[in-house]
Amino acid sequence: MFAVTILGNNSAVPAFDRHPTSQVVTYDGNNYLVDCGEGTQIQMINYKIRRSKISHIFISHLHGDHYFGLVGLINSFGLLNHQQELHVFGPSPLKEIIELQLRVADTRLPYQLHLHTITKADNLLETEKLSVKCFRTNHRIECYGFVFTEKKQTRRLDPEKAKEYEIPIAFYERLKDGEDYTRKDGFVVKNEWVTEPSGPARKYAFCADTKYDESLIPHIQGADLIYHETTYLDNLRERAESRFHSTSKQAALIAKKAGVKKLLIGHFSSKYDTLEEFEKEAREVFPNTELALEGTAYTI
Amino acid sequence: MFAVTILGNNSAVPAFDRHPTSQVVTYDGNNYLVDCGEGTQIQMINYKIRRSKISHIFISHLHGDHYFGLVGLINSFGLLNHQQELHVFGPSPLKEIIELQLRVADTRLPYQLHLHTITKADNLLETEKLSVKCFRTNHRIECYGFVFTEKKQTRRLDPEKAKEYEIPIAFYERLKDGEDYTRKDGFVVKNEWVTEPSGPARKYAFCADTKYDESLIPHIQGADLIYHETTYLDNLRERAESRFHSTSKQAALIAKKAGVKKLLIGHFSSKYDTLEEFEKEAREVFPNTELALEGTAYTI
Repeated sequence: MFAVTILGNNSAVPAFDRHPTSQVVTYDGNNYLVDCGEGTQIQMINYKIRRSKISHIFISHLHGDHYFGLVGLINSFGLLNHQQELHVFGPSPLKEIIELQLRVADTRLPYQLHLHTITKADNLLETEKLSVKCFRTNHRIECYGFVFTEKKQTRRLDPEKAKEYEIPIAFYERLKDGEDYTRKDGFVVKNEWVTEPSGPARKYAFCADTKYDESLIPHIQGADLIYHETTYLDNLRERAESRFHSTSKQAALIAKKAGVKKLLIGHFSSKYDTLEEFEKEAREVFPNTELALEGTAYTI
Repeated sequence: MFAVTILGNNSAVPAFDRHPTSQVVTYDGNNYLVDCGEGTQIQMINYKIRRSKISHIFISHLHGDHYFGLVGLINSFGLLNHQQELHVFGPSPLKEIIELQLRVADTRLPYQLHLHTITKADNLLETEKLSVKCFRTNHRIECYGFVFTEKKQTRRLDPEKAKEYEIPIAFYERLKDGEDYTRKDGFVVKNEWVTEPSGPARKYAFCADTKYDESLIPHIQGADLIYHETTYLDNLRERAESRFHSTSKQAALIAKKAGVKKLLIGHFSSKYDTLEEFEKEAREVFPNTELALEGTAYTI
């Protein structure tokens, strides 16, 4: 599974039961956390996100609504006796802020914490199947977006055909990896009978906080899904511009020009109690848009 | 009204829908915040605490479950265009931690923020009607309790008698201040007909995190209400001791020896999913004990 689950979709202050920015990218049984506003650990409990599966956290920038929950999460991992190493990536001086707070509390973590400082567009992580890169966005302070790109291209399974050949569901992942299936009676089901070659590798881009800026496009081009902020509706375009934020229409324009398959919009201003207008405005420009709703997982 | 409303009653990590430490002391229309664990601003929204009425925040110590929500609250006050000055009291280096985080976000607060460093038992605040003092508790790191003592002693009103004399309810506060009431027909209701001299000034003590320590007693003696932590039940007394925490029985012993009127217990370990045993254990030693429940206001 390659998906993103929204934990917080609001900007600035919590309001209307919406929370500051945080989302979990799930790939191949691992959870990657992107941003960590205050209360993220409580949202994880609410939405049953397995905290023990988190090995990497990516922080876009040091406005509080994107990272005030980080120190609490790091601390709680310690109290919950998390053993796995934890890697945190973010701009300076995130490392100093976290280390100062851990030091004054005389915190002893039972796991290794690695605080990595991002200073430019870079490759942050390479696993066997996934890469994570960061790119600069255009915000009031230093800010980065993140692109998750699948490396391994598994074959596309036709579940109807797999069912016809009586292949157990437990074997489906191995079919996607190209294996043949040998039935108990010795009959061999050839992989190509039930699968097709995979399409291109899937890609998800989190565009962080940013004003409208077409220089983002090369980084997110052709993505299966992007998340772009839409703090305001387009009638407040000047306010958005002056605060280095985007409108719904602008997010949709970026999605359209970047040729992405689907757009997820979030980071709504607390001045809006309902969100329908954001979706409506964006869909006029880019029909395949959805609101980023808390607790919802969007498949990539 | 003199009361304390619990916003968080759990220790360390959030669990079982219990939140880290925070409480609001209400006196004479002002709200004083004591500790500010992560998510306090969301709990304030949940329990309809008027954030605009908060002018003073007291932080007991720099373990995260007592202050990780502070920077978010300070930030949100700014975004909500709070105008009133805000005074925050806490041990070093709280001031540096907050200032660093505000600086890196290029935060411009629309109100004056005063960060006061506590270094010893001290008088922190004197208003016309209330004083707030701090005292050292016995914890793993520098930690302070807070005592709220009423100065003004209003007279005790007998509402039955006030009703007999046809005095409007709107005048009751002035009766408590000792005024006579003149009816429309010119008849003067003498104050002493409907009120009695006040009792001693009321007092509330928040004992923060602490191991069992009788040196706290002089600071909280005779209080109308104290809040004392009870991280564990008494069968884990050694664990409590080693972690500089108290058991339910120990909290009750302190309350008994200090001759207080009522005990409120909280700061429960996340290992307990239910709380009845805490109350039971404390009541065996000190019957007038109540569990500190989130969202509940306890009159002082």
